[in-house]
Amino acid sequence: MKKVLVLGGDGYIGWPTAMYLSNQGYEVVVVDNYLRRNLMHDLGVKPLFSSFDLEQRVKIWNELSSNTIRTFIGDLNEWDFVHNIFSNFLPDVVIHFAEQPSAPYSMLDRKSASLTLRNNILVTANLIFAVNEFNPDAHIIKLGTMGEYGTPNIDIEEGWIDIHHKGRSDKFLFPRQASSLYHTTKIMDTDLLWFYVRNWNLKVTDLMQGPVYGLFTHETLIDDRLLPFFSYDEIFGTVINRFIIQAVVGHPLTVYGKGGQTRGYINIHDAIKCIELTIKTPAESGSLRIYNQFTEKFTVNTLANMIRDAAVEFGLDVNINNITNPRSEQEDHYYNPVHTGLSELGLQPTTFDSSVIQSLIAKVLHHKSDINIEAILKNITWA
Amino acid sequence: MKKVLVLGGDGYIGWPTAMYLSNQGYEVVVVDNYLRRNLMHDLGVKPLFSSFDLEQRVKIWNELSSNTIRTFIGDLNEWDFVHNIFSNFLPDVVIHFAEQPSAPYSMLDRKSASLTLRNNILVTANLIFAVNEFNPDAHIIKLGTMGEYGTPNIDIEEGWIDIHHKGRSDKFLFPRQASSLYHTTKIMDTDLLWFYVRNWNLKVTDLMQGPVYGLFTHETLIDDRLLPFFSYDEIFGTVINRFIIQAVVGHPLTVYGKGGQTRGYINIHDAIKCIELTIKTPAESGSLRIYNQFTEKFTVNTLANMIRDAAVEFGLDVNINNITNPRSEQEDHYYNPVHTGLSELGLQPTTFDSSVIQSLIAKVLHHKSDINIEAILKNITWA
Repeated sequence: MKKVLVLGGDGYIGWPTAMYLSNQGYEVVVVDNYLRRNLMHDLGVKPLFSSFDLEQRVKIWNELSSNTIRTFIGDLNEWDFVHNIFSNFLPDVVIHFAEQPSAPYSMLDRKSASLTLRNNILVTANLIFAVNEFNPDAHIIKLGTMGEYGTPNIDIEEGWIDIHHKGRSDKFLFPRQASSLYHTTKIMDTDLLWFYVRNWNLKVTDLMQGPVYGLFTHETLIDDRLLPFFSYDEIFGTVINRFIIQAVVGHPLTVYGKGGQTRGYINIHDAIKCIELTIKTPAESGSLRIYNQFTEKFTVNTLANMIRDAAVEFGLDVNINNITNPRSEQEDHYYNPVHTGLSELGLQPTTFDSSVIQSLIAKVLHHKSDINIEAILKNITWA
Repeated sequence: MKKVLVLGGDGYIGWPTAMYLSNQGYEVVVVDNYLRRNLMHDLGVKPLFSSFDLEQRVKIWNELSSNTIRTFIGDLNEWDFVHNIFSNFLPDVVIHFAEQPSAPYSMLDRKSASLTLRNNILVTANLIFAVNEFNPDAHIIKLGTMGEYGTPNIDIEEGWIDIHHKGRSDKFLFPRQASSLYHTTKIMDTDLLWFYVRNWNLKVTDLMQGPVYGLFTHETLIDDRLLPFFSYDEIFGTVINRFIIQAVVGHPLTVYGKGGQTRGYINIHDAIKCIELTIKTPAESGSLRIYNQFTEKFTVNTLANMIRDAAVEFGLDVNINNITNPRSEQEDHYYNPVHTGLSELGLQPTTFDSSVIQSLIAKVLHHKSDINIEAILKNITWA
């Protein structure tokens, strides 16, 4: 079976991905420096289900499962650390989640912006250098984001576009124009990867993820101690998590601005399946293959209404409150991204329906006493 | 008069720009950390006319001129240094030359690539943060490069393009796809600047320079000690300088590959004039204004032939030799970039003709004994 290196293995998607691939028989090594845990700690925010760190969860996994995950804890900004990993474990596949993942965090202040830039770009560079030095044939799977595209007034293709201009034409990366520094670092990552793909004939797949939601995979259901982060604060949380927590604690769902912001969403189960499908069908040498990884589009208003309606089952009476938007973003815009590539590889989409929402509400209700409602609104603005 | 901060004031264009603006009555402060000098020293390459460093040249300038330039020597990667400059001198205009400027250097090895990435992106970020913190109304003039665009099969517009796609349209940054890591860092700079222009309503002009040639401005002609670098080695030199040196020492002109590589070139006098025109007509708040800054297009073969022909005047018998191309680049391609913006601001172009070439040959002949021919071909390849 292929050897898979998961960079950012402590993360919300990194950890369930590592377990899933381990369960499928891949030889899995995870790497993390606990950057996100440390930032959350410094900011005084805490996700649900985060008490066990990566080393502890790996230990639990290795006890419960018939397979073994290995762990390296350290900073991928340091070349010596990167060199040490690749000297010990020559991967066939490298999955790159090792980035500062929060848009609001990247907008906090100069230091948070600097950290985000430095970490995301220099870690990506070290990964590229290591693959080229140790195994240029390895398949790099990069987690991108649909946020790189922003909300253009034309249909968003899967990473590439043919431009016809003044009687001539050529193929280019689809234009990217994001609404946070975090998303901008992902654009810069794409520039970097695309250059080295051409220069060194690397094999790269870029998965342009929409916001991922959900908690449950075959592996996370084995033991509550294996659950990934469930962040609901304004900095590391996503809109679906925030709304579910607000519904559970009886706080009005806080819709930013008019709530017409449309994004493509994907269940964590499907997000991991996409990664597996991508591993099984690698990119070719010298190609940057790009998939738009989401299954359904919703406006924020639609999400709020769906969660309100699903919460009735639990006797929760949910209100919705449109608040001043702390972000600089369009609240009403055209949004039509293509997302056929992963279906063609065989993805069977999970639907964000009332039963999915209710399973999340049930889990959160069970841990209601751990919720820190103060964390939800920290008054971070983009200015 | 406006207060102008020149970052990278020791450089080939930075230094003559600083003198020119000082002569025009602007209050000029120059900043440098001698990165390029140190890299050249480490690599054992030496340009002509480089014996006087920035502090020495500023001292000479301040003695010879009726105006005074001030100097800060230090690393713009360090926020404390940046903070100190802006606390002491609040600029109306910041001209940003402070980047590792060599494409071949960026392709040498992992360390040179890391240094280029880190320096170019983090210095640009610190500049953006400083302008936003100290004077968001300041006009940032960024030296970009035509190399960001690469050689697409469509006409290259001035930074922006209207894309019509599936019956809809929108305006985007013109697609960028470069052929070295150095050029890729400039693309990443553009992404970063464009994000913060939108987020903080900054005023930015990006000058997409073609290769700049020449030595002579009103100020450099005052005293030989004020001449800028004239690099001709394979790492920091440009093709025109290399050919002139080769013509002078009787080495065949080394054309990389077929020599059909077409670029837009500009005389240093005009490059500086463009900066002045840009200062006089600043970008508006929230706008990233982009000019393609070159005056004439030539293939490498045409340059070689022109220099061979002009050298006859000095009794030099020049041969031309097509060598294996050390770079990954197209040697025969479509190239039609628009460059009308700066003419509209009033630029009167200098022509690269035999008298210009002969004035350069004459100057170099005068310093022939300082030439180190070994430095020209260091066998750097892109692989």
